[in-house]
Amino acid sequence: MRRSAGTLAVVGATGQVGTVMRQIIEERKVPFERLRFFASSRSAGSTINFGQQTIEVEDVDVADLEGIDYALFSIGASASRIYAPRFAAAGATVIDNSSAYRMDSEVPLVVPEVNPGDAARRPLGIIANPNCTTMIAMPPLAVIDRLFGLERVIVSTYQAASGAGKAGVVELDEQLRRPDLVRLTFDGAAVAFAPPQKFPATLAGNVIPLAGELRDGDTSEEEKFINESRKILGLKDLKVHATCVRVPVFTGHSIAVLAECRDQPRVERLVAELDQQPGCKVVGLPTPLACAGADAVLVGRIRRDRSSANGVAFFVAGDNLRKGAALNAIQILELLLD
Amino acid sequence: MRRSAGTLAVVGATGQVGTVMRQIIEERKVPFERLRFFASSRSAGSTINFGQQTIEVEDVDVADLEGIDYALFSIGASASRIYAPRFAAAGATVIDNSSAYRMDSEVPLVVPEVNPGDAARRPLGIIANPNCTTMIAMPPLAVIDRLFGLERVIVSTYQAASGAGKAGVVELDEQLRRPDLVRLTFDGAAVAFAPPQKFPATLAGNVIPLAGELRDGDTSEEEKFINESRKILGLKDLKVHATCVRVPVFTGHSIAVLAECRDQPRVERLVAELDQQPGCKVVGLPTPLACAGADAVLVGRIRRDRSSANGVAFFVAGDNLRKGAALNAIQILELLLD
Repeated sequence: MRRSAGTLAVVGATGQVGTVMRQIIEERKVPFERLRFFASSRSAGSTINFGQQTIEVEDVDVADLEGIDYALFSIGASASRIYAPRFAAAGATVIDNSSAYRMDSEVPLVVPEVNPGDAARRPLGIIANPNCTTMIAMPPLAVIDRLFGLERVIVSTYQAASGAGKAGVVELDEQLRRPDLVRLTFDGAAVAFAPPQKFPATLAGNVIPLAGELRDGDTSEEEKFINESRKILGLKDLKVHATCVRVPVFTGHSIAVLAECRDQPRVERLVAELDQQPGCKVVGLPTPLACAGADAVLVGRIRRDRSSANGVAFFVAGDNLRKGAALNAIQILELLLD
Repeated sequence: MRRSAGTLAVVGATGQVGTVMRQIIEERKVPFERLRFFASSRSAGSTINFGQQTIEVEDVDVADLEGIDYALFSIGASASRIYAPRFAAAGATVIDNSSAYRMDSEVPLVVPEVNPGDAARRPLGIIANPNCTTMIAMPPLAVIDRLFGLERVIVSTYQAASGAGKAGVVELDEQLRRPDLVRLTFDGAAVAFAPPQKFPATLAGNVIPLAGELRDGDTSEEEKFINESRKILGLKDLKVHATCVRVPVFTGHSIAVLAECRDQPRVERLVAELDQQPGCKVVGLPTPLACAGADAVLVGRIRRDRSSANGVAFFVAGDNLRKGAALNAIQILELLLD
């Protein structure tokens, strides 16, 4: 029997991930006594229907935080750095979807199917939810590590516009509505589009090999994949190479993965174990459209790598707003209530 | 001074690549005395304007092939197997864009900036043009091999619809014209689209990790990349891993490449040499839209791989109809005329 979450808060309740969090709380019948919604002053004061209730969105900056037991945060890293400690100080356990605390050694970074035990030690009262791209790769990589000993991971990503928030979806949608899109793209006439705001180039008819900010060679998005994978899998010396690429897909992140192992991987054994792994589903053709709205990540194209002695390759697609964000946060909450 | 091509034939002149071949013959002022266009009986009898001339398209199956000096073929592998030997027997040197002869040991597979010398030995009178995806990666990989000794290549591709011919472009365009595309893709409602004809799944709002036919783990497209890379680079033991993925882009193939070398790669030296390499251009953000209509492949995101001792990573985008197909074929022709 799952305990009640008592007073449960969704912080960033009007955003893209917050909206999916509200849907999933309802879908999964997360038990609670009281539900409170928070947002920035811009959205505060509006009301949101939840089941039979109408709930007013509170201003996160001025609301009374007494009595909140659990808070699901999705308000971006800089806001999380301000408000997550306030909620924690008032007694709430915070599950934060931003990058703010993920690499903090005092904050566990949890994928419930992979490292549930890490959630127990949370001295700051904060548990971090992984980056949406990293997350999608974790369930199958955890299985590979358990079976064959993971030594090196090489990934190329195919990331959807929704990973950059609602504004990314709107920008792509507007670009795709150009009736002369085919001719424009054949002419390479990127200049014919309005200057992009959310992405560093026009995304319609294009792929953009730059997600996040460029650091020393790698991007912030690639660094997240490298660092968070090591922390979640508990493999601090794991070798990781990532190339993060935005594609003109509205939702659903995909990743081409090459995993090099200590032991020789056996594909049949891997397929059988992946099929048993909660949060994974083996399919013929894992695609963003096939995974949208689903809880499990879809894994396919599983095959031995012919360029290394102990490599195995696969392709994985997952709903970046669900498993990549809102669903995983709520699964962490459920873990704490079980 | 370049010799004249004498009587020059374009076989498959009405197709997508044939159309670009005709444009490039004009653009580059390829010298010839007579130009003849061929197609299947379906398109034969139509006329095509070229400069001041109007040229009737001849039926490849019944035309008199006497006196043709050079023939640029882009009619698909099964037709090439029938007609390329006929043109060669009648005295023409055939430059074939299909996969039919690429791995034939009696047929050179040529990228003029990489292995021009291979074109000299052509006992069947046929020279093969590489696969459009393989092609895009060859100029930068040849530089890396020359500088640091290439040992292993790992690629994930982002292939455009036009790589699957005109029908692929039309299919994607029709899917993208759905006004409710955003909602459909968020709902994962692939079923709401008409069943795809050209691709194994809906391509709009999606990526499809399956190009070509599935063989023993790898696909035919992945096998082409592996085998053709070895032949063009003259590295028969090169280790290659490829994952070929179709993306909702009309034209321009892109590839995320990780190259492992014998010697430690120096990024500054590589960038300087790539900038000097004909057919390559180093840019900040190589994308399909930026490369469409351009001759050079665009190379960027060049950085050391932190997951291996001697690895270097880059992203490359090239116009699959130009450098990936028509342009390279005409560059081979120019090589023979110089």
